[in-house]
Amino acid sequence: MKKPLGVITRPKGFQAGGAAAGIKTTPGLLDVGLLVCDRPASAAAVFTTNKVSAAPVQVSREHFARSHGRVKAVVVNAGNANACTGKHGLRDARKMAGLAAELLDVEPARVLVASTGIIGQPLAMDRVESGIREAARGLSADRRGGARFAQAIMTTDRWPKEAEASVVIAGTRVRLAGVVKGAGMIAPRMATLLAFVTTDAAVSPALLGKLLRSSVDRSFNRITVDGHMSTNDTCVALASGRSGATVRGGSRREKKFASALDEVTLNLALDVVRDGEGAVRVATVRVEHARSDADAELAARAVAESPLVKTALFGADPNWGRIVSAAGASGCAFREDRTSLRVNGHEIYRRGRPLAPSKAVERAMTGSRVTFVLDLGLDRGSSVVYTCDMGHAYVHLNAEYHT
Amino acid sequence: MKKPLGVITRPKGFQAGGAAAGIKTTPGLLDVGLLVCDRPASAAAVFTTNKVSAAPVQVSREHFARSHGRVKAVVVNAGNANACTGKHGLRDARKMAGLAAELLDVEPARVLVASTGIIGQPLAMDRVESGIREAARGLSADRRGGARFAQAIMTTDRWPKEAEASVVIAGTRVRLAGVVKGAGMIAPRMATLLAFVTTDAAVSPALLGKLLRSSVDRSFNRITVDGHMSTNDTCVALASGRSGATVRGGSRREKKFASALDEVTLNLALDVVRDGEGAVRVATVRVEHARSDADAELAARAVAESPLVKTALFGADPNWGRIVSAAGASGCAFREDRTSLRVNGHEIYRRGRPLAPSKAVERAMTGSRVTFVLDLGLDRGSSVVYTCDMGHAYVHLNAEYHT
Repeated sequence: MKKPLGVITRPKGFQAGGAAAGIKTTPGLLDVGLLVCDRPASAAAVFTTNKVSAAPVQVSREHFARSHGRVKAVVVNAGNANACTGKHGLRDARKMAGLAAELLDVEPARVLVASTGIIGQPLAMDRVESGIREAARGLSADRRGGARFAQAIMTTDRWPKEAEASVVIAGTRVRLAGVVKGAGMIAPRMATLLAFVTTDAAVSPALLGKLLRSSVDRSFNRITVDGHMSTNDTCVALASGRSGATVRGGSRREKKFASALDEVTLNLALDVVRDGEGAVRVATVRVEHARSDADAELAARAVAESPLVKTALFGADPNWGRIVSAAGASGCAFREDRTSLRVNGHEIYRRGRPLAPSKAVERAMTGSRVTFVLDLGLDRGSSVVYTCDMGHAYVHLNAEYHT
Repeated sequence: MKKPLGVITRPKGFQAGGAAAGIKTTPGLLDVGLLVCDRPASAAAVFTTNKVSAAPVQVSREHFARSHGRVKAVVVNAGNANACTGKHGLRDARKMAGLAAELLDVEPARVLVASTGIIGQPLAMDRVESGIREAARGLSADRRGGARFAQAIMTTDRWPKEAEASVVIAGTRVRLAGVVKGAGMIAPRMATLLAFVTTDAAVSPALLGKLLRSSVDRSFNRITVDGHMSTNDTCVALASGRSGATVRGGSRREKKFASALDEVTLNLALDVVRDGEGAVRVATVRVEHARSDADAELAARAVAESPLVKTALFGADPNWGRIVSAAGASGCAFREDRTSLRVNGHEIYRRGRPLAPSKAVERAMTGSRVTFVLDLGLDRGSSVVYTCDMGHAYVHLNAEYHT
């Protein structure tokens, strides 16, 4: 497995750590992580919109509101999602935040909590608690701490997923870093995406929230593995301000910072799709000239989530009929005689008529990245969604490893 | 393979036939079918709502309107869907109807046309035309003709799908029969459902249309194999009136007839799910006590179409977390602490809390039919959707047989 780089502590003002608490079934794997800012950081957070939200999501929402976006730390466990666990689960999530707060000497509301793993089972709280203590003892500001944190949040990811960027603001280098866990499905059983972003820029919670929401919308909200929304999705950004450079709303600095943030979240998101449930191929589904952006999004999602499109992708089959018919049934404005499709730039369907299949298209389908551009020929709406193939490994991971 | 019973000609006034024209790749398989009424029948038709509709669908819509619901015959081919074929395809579909009309000595608008099979390829019209001539020569009112028709519309169905019912109206026995082709995915590549229903009741086109739409809504519109809507879906009902019994709107006779029609369409629909792309298990997803029927439908579809639910079904895994979270993300009104789930009558999740998994639930999951009842505990809305598992055969069928 690729070694983690431990980038999350690269921005100034952060420490991280991880512990093997025995929550994951494989002994010795890190499964409790702690990410801490020297002083309460400006924070922003985006959570799952599933009406079934895990206990840690409920507690983090509450703490985030009570702290007015000033957050000291995030405590995470992998191996158990603490979802669908009723009042007992809520109590456990509060205990996790409470213990971390006690060890860091802050109010509990300054600590957010996230969990990922199997759902519907109670947390082994004795193990979780000793894991939190150990992670706190081992906190470090160097890449070792960051690497342990990156490993501790993984479930069945085939590799740790990290990204970083930097940008010079008013002569000062500002760093951003991020880590994400993706959609492995063996023990955890749910595609629970957790993402954490750090920066040493000084940004107000309000501005950071605005930028994070818009960045998530262009990254994590643009990927699909199987269209099944998780109960635990959480994305948290923390800004320490330790670089000394301040980002204010409406400035050129804001644009620079936003584009670096986008780079980090998009790289993380694409890494999640690449590692989607046994995937061998990533597809970019771009819809152009739709009646509106919303229409384009409808069509792009319908194509990207169609099991028929995804199995054809697995089989490296340029099955354009499935793509066109998925869009036609998506509810978007659609005229067959205006619709064209390109695969890696090669036209295969033009204004409602199939073109003779070319060798170039067949070759394009066998690569690790394929881009479909569906041109609806109507107006100026556009959208993009990233997806992966669905093959035997998907079925294997999701059917054959039972409770 | 199960022998076809040939029920479609059981109601009085119908003849059917089929021919092997060489459109399917396996030589000798029947692939052109003709279903004819002695005199123009009262007709009703429901077509795909996909904005990409195949040429035969476009021509049938036009003919249906021009004939004012008085239809003499339906001509069908399997092996090629004549979809996404542009103006050329439209010309071919018109030729099919035109030739059948000529042979039966009626106006072309009295003939509907349906195709199923591979998309984006031109029909071999010489073969199709000689097939139509041969099918017309071999028309018969006995079960041999019906059996040939049932075989001619199959693509990769593992068995022919037929159903019948009868009901006594004012002392006269009225017969109904139906035949459907389902979602096999090898050569045809698209789940193109074609269904034909005959009856010897006398029913006006308007009433038959009303009853068929409502019946389709409770049967073919309640099944999902992969949520991918086809370009060719067509359901046609023909009433010869030859039994002498008349069904009028608003009468007790209407109710009796409607319930027999529902029996036929629901049996056909369930047979399609049973034969869905390598399926080993059929699941009934019933949602109860939703805020509204529309809400219940949202939740039932989200559960029935989730690849995670379907792979768990393949693995006989009572993975209730996937069911509950699919419903929670469906957009329906939802409260976790009101939600319960039963598997074949055994409660596994009660008002937001998991119950200890029971042997009875595990056993239930290994059968060929499983019923999930998701109780949202809110109001009186309910809905039901039938689905099947998604296993290796699905991936195999849809990925590994290329163009």
